Amino acid sequence: MANDIDARRPEARKPRGFQDKGASLLRAERQLVDAISAVYARWGFDQLDTGPFEYVDALGKFLPDTDRPNAGVFALTDDDEQWIALRYDHTAPLARYVAENWERLVKPYRRFSAGPVWRNEKPGPFRYREFIQCDADSVGVAGPAADAEMIAIAVEAMRAAGAQEGEFVVRVNTRQLLDGVMEAAGVGEPARRGAVLRALDKLDRLGPEGVTLLLGKGRKDESGDFTPGAGLTAAQIDRLLAFAGARAETRARTLDALSDVAGSTAAGTEGVTELGAINEILAALGVPECSVVFDPAVVRGLEYYTGPVFEADLLREFRDEDGRSVRFGSVGGGGRYDGLVARFRGEPAPATGFSVGVSRLAAAMAASEALAVQGPVLVLVLDRDHIAEYCAMAAELRAAGVRAETYLGASGMRAQMKYADRRGSPAVVIVGETERNAGVVTIKDLKVGAEAAKGIADNEAWRAERPGQFEAPRSEMAARIASLLGGGT
Amino acid sequence: MANDIDARRPEARKPRGFQDKGASLLRAERQLVDAISAVYARWGFDQLDTGPFEYVDALGKFLPDTDRPNAGVFALTDDDEQWIALRYDHTAPLARYVAENWERLVKPYRRFSAGPVWRNEKPGPFRYREFIQCDADSVGVAGPAADAEMIAIAVEAMRAAGAQEGEFVVRVNTRQLLDGVMEAAGVGEPARRGAVLRALDKLDRLGPEGVTLLLGKGRKDESGDFTPGAGLTAAQIDRLLAFAGARAETRARTLDALSDVAGSTAAGTEGVTELGAINEILAALGVPECSVVFDPAVVRGLEYYTGPVFEADLLREFRDEDGRSVRFGSVGGGGRYDGLVARFRGEPAPATGFSVGVSRLAAAMAASEALAVQGPVLVLVLDRDHIAEYCAMAAELRAAGVRAETYLGASGMRAQMKYADRRGSPAVVIVGETERNAGVVTIKDLKVGAEAAKGIADNEAWRAERPGQFEAPRSEMAARIASLLGGGT
Repeated sequence: MANDIDARRPEARKPRGFQDKGASLLRAERQLVDAISAVYARWGFDQLDTGPFEYVDALGKFLPDTDRPNAGVFALTDDDEQWIALRYDHTAPLARYVAENWERLVKPYRRFSAGPVWRNEKPGPFRYREFIQCDADSVGVAGPAADAEMIAIAVEAMRAAGAQEGEFVVRVNTRQLLDGVMEAAGVGEPARRGAVLRALDKLDRLGPEGVTLLLGKGRKDESGDFTPGAGLTAAQIDRLLAFAGARAETRARTLDALSDVAGSTAAGTEGVTELGAINEILAALGVPECSVVFDPAVVRGLEYYTGPVFEADLLREFRDEDGRSVRFGSVGGGGRYDGLVARFRGEPAPATGFSVGVSRLAAAMAASEALAVQGPVLVLVLDRDHIAEYCAMAAELRAAGVRAETYLGASGMRAQMKYADRRGSPAVVIVGETERNAGVVTIKDLKVGAEAAKGIADNEAWRAERPGQFEAPRSEMAARIASLLGGGT
Repeated sequence: MANDIDARRPEARKPRGFQDKGASLLRAERQLVDAISAVYARWGFDQLDTGPFEYVDALGKFLPDTDRPNAGVFALTDDDEQWIALRYDHTAPLARYVAENWERLVKPYRRFSAGPVWRNEKPGPFRYREFIQCDADSVGVAGPAADAEMIAIAVEAMRAAGAQEGEFVVRVNTRQLLDGVMEAAGVGEPARRGAVLRALDKLDRLGPEGVTLLLGKGRKDESGDFTPGAGLTAAQIDRLLAFAGARAETRARTLDALSDVAGSTAAGTEGVTELGAINEILAALGVPECSVVFDPAVVRGLEYYTGPVFEADLLREFRDEDGRSVRFGSVGGGGRYDGLVARFRGEPAPATGFSVGVSRLAAAMAASEALAVQGPVLVLVLDRDHIAEYCAMAAELRAAGVRAETYLGASGMRAQMKYADRRGSPAVVIVGETERNAGVVTIKDLKVGAEAAKGIADNEAWRAERPGQFEAPRSEMAARIASLLGGGT
């Protein structure tokens, strides 16, 4: 049996849901991660990378309810027969780390993290099973100043990711406000509250009509699928829609409107007061009205967040894999989660954080011309007996700061030129017997050549003119190429 | 049952064999990865990251011979019930990628890779189950120029990692030479050849005496464990030791010596010729004799490599976790592997590569003072009613390029000063009612303060003098702190 398998040639195939990432995409990811990490560091956060695995019981959300706790995560048993799983976010491992090191940690504990997380979910276009998240978290901080700080950090992170003022918005809400308005509308039952929150969360996508159906008797979507409604009365629905739509010109005016709709309950009042305190600090931090809005329709994992929640939306459009224009939407979010560390320690540890997803942003960035990685200058090999000389020429170019390589394949000059073209080489260097004897090199500027080619219709004229091609003394090779590339690559 | 588990508090513990990495270590890793990647890019390699998982049959070395192919790798079944495993190096996934994309790839294909690999092995001091490797590989290149290039790249990578000339050496050998000398010594049987190679590989560690025992009747180590010997005659052993010890002052002279010992066979002659061609190119590339030596005792995974092999050794010593001085030893290696892609495609694809392990280097770097991450300037919070003002002060410092945060915990001034100290803050800013009314801030330079404290024995004198503490107009706060830090952090 083992021999049968050995004899069979394996099929070369990429695992489903994962990417082979090329140079431009990796460069875009790196630029984003570096820029966002720099924001976190400037605000006093120190990097911590907790490693890829956690014990499954510590991960929390995915407790072992079957023999194989593999739903949503990549899990396996280690050599001690304990279930471990790849982290699905950076927050659950942070909670474990903080609980494990509680006594020796300096508190408040401020850390950022930047790296991949893994989800064992159905892959699709732009939905991979590995993606990169950059998080900042403060543990051991209660009160609105820490939340306001996170919101201001979200704004700076969006700017660091290249979004201009007006191209993004951070939308802020609080759990207390949602609790308050549901209480005021007479929605008490937890299951019904869940249905109401899921409906409100779709306001952006479905508009008031769709949400009205979801809050009432249910809604059939385009595909014919029916979502049962929350079964509320018309008066209840009106009240909730008035709440969810209460967004005014400024944060302060939105607060006034919210106070009218939800201020009749203790929770609602608490929520409005909290957002008021956040607004005061955002103003002191100079965060513009257009970058942060209070939006009562923001609902984020409420079994998890315990106070303010927020979401960073990129308003810009980008082209997807099929060339269609797509609104970016949410690229990050966060909020207060006072319960997470308490899972381990029993006593509460107030905490607040922000997470931005870098992978989709990077994919959009990588598509831009500016991030294309420039190919190396290629030293052609016309005579393999002189290979050492060609190697030395490339070394000379590299010493002058130029990305350069010697052609090391087995093909002839024509194929070497095609190689240079496909690698995106800006130039090639050619030394044959004539050049060697004359002590010169032929340099071919491929960018100039390609430009000129557009203007020359006829092949013979092309060969006669040889645009972009020139000779230089051997001793000036590196300097001439460096200047052709604008002083190095 | 599920409720029992929910009710139980999980224990916060890091998975065995993995690290929680702090800011200094991550910074060291990043610097090394960036510096080595820059070398690869300058030589014309483009980055490719193949993703964390491969199908187990494609990984090769770990073919499913049991129901659970988990020996040495982290493996699990995906939702299609196929076994996938985390990559244990960057080369096996490269072979899969090249085979999968053969038609559309530009050849020679030159790629580098930088990222974690995972091994499910017994953890120990400095031995983790995740570590970072930076690889460069050329696929579709036959002949010594490509191998010489890899060796020269290894030299530049060592320099990029901070090793000075003379602090490291790249030791080069070839499989043909080993085959030749074994043939010349009359060692034919494959099992015996394996025992001979394993013995030669230990020359560095055990010296000629130990290797003699391993080549002959066997050796008992300090712990009493007995390793059976290869059972060679004294004449055979002499010949092999003469070979393994044939290292002269220069590469050229080593080649002369090797020619004497192994040149009587076709394989030996081929090996010497190949190293000669490599030497010619190394000389053209300006690689010094002290950086690259030919060393016939280098043996690396010979079921895998098909031609030249090499190993990069760091000669520097460093302090381990227990403060002991340890010789670094091998930090990277590589060679020619013409068979790897052929596993998938049937036809051979000549290839050569180099891999450097970054994690141990980074651990040693992170221990140095220079890489300690400087803490943020801390704005103390003396009166929580003025929290917005304190937040605005930190924002002003950040806008001036200074890493800064506002204290957001609940503790008093004494604890805040302790927090600044433990965070490694260079300075704190203090504004109480007095300062506020006077339009000034108090700045405390904690570095100067700590220095001065060494010279002041008595607590009262300390409090009277307050070294490093001064007042500045509120409007000059950011400028004064930036200049105190030497123009920003």
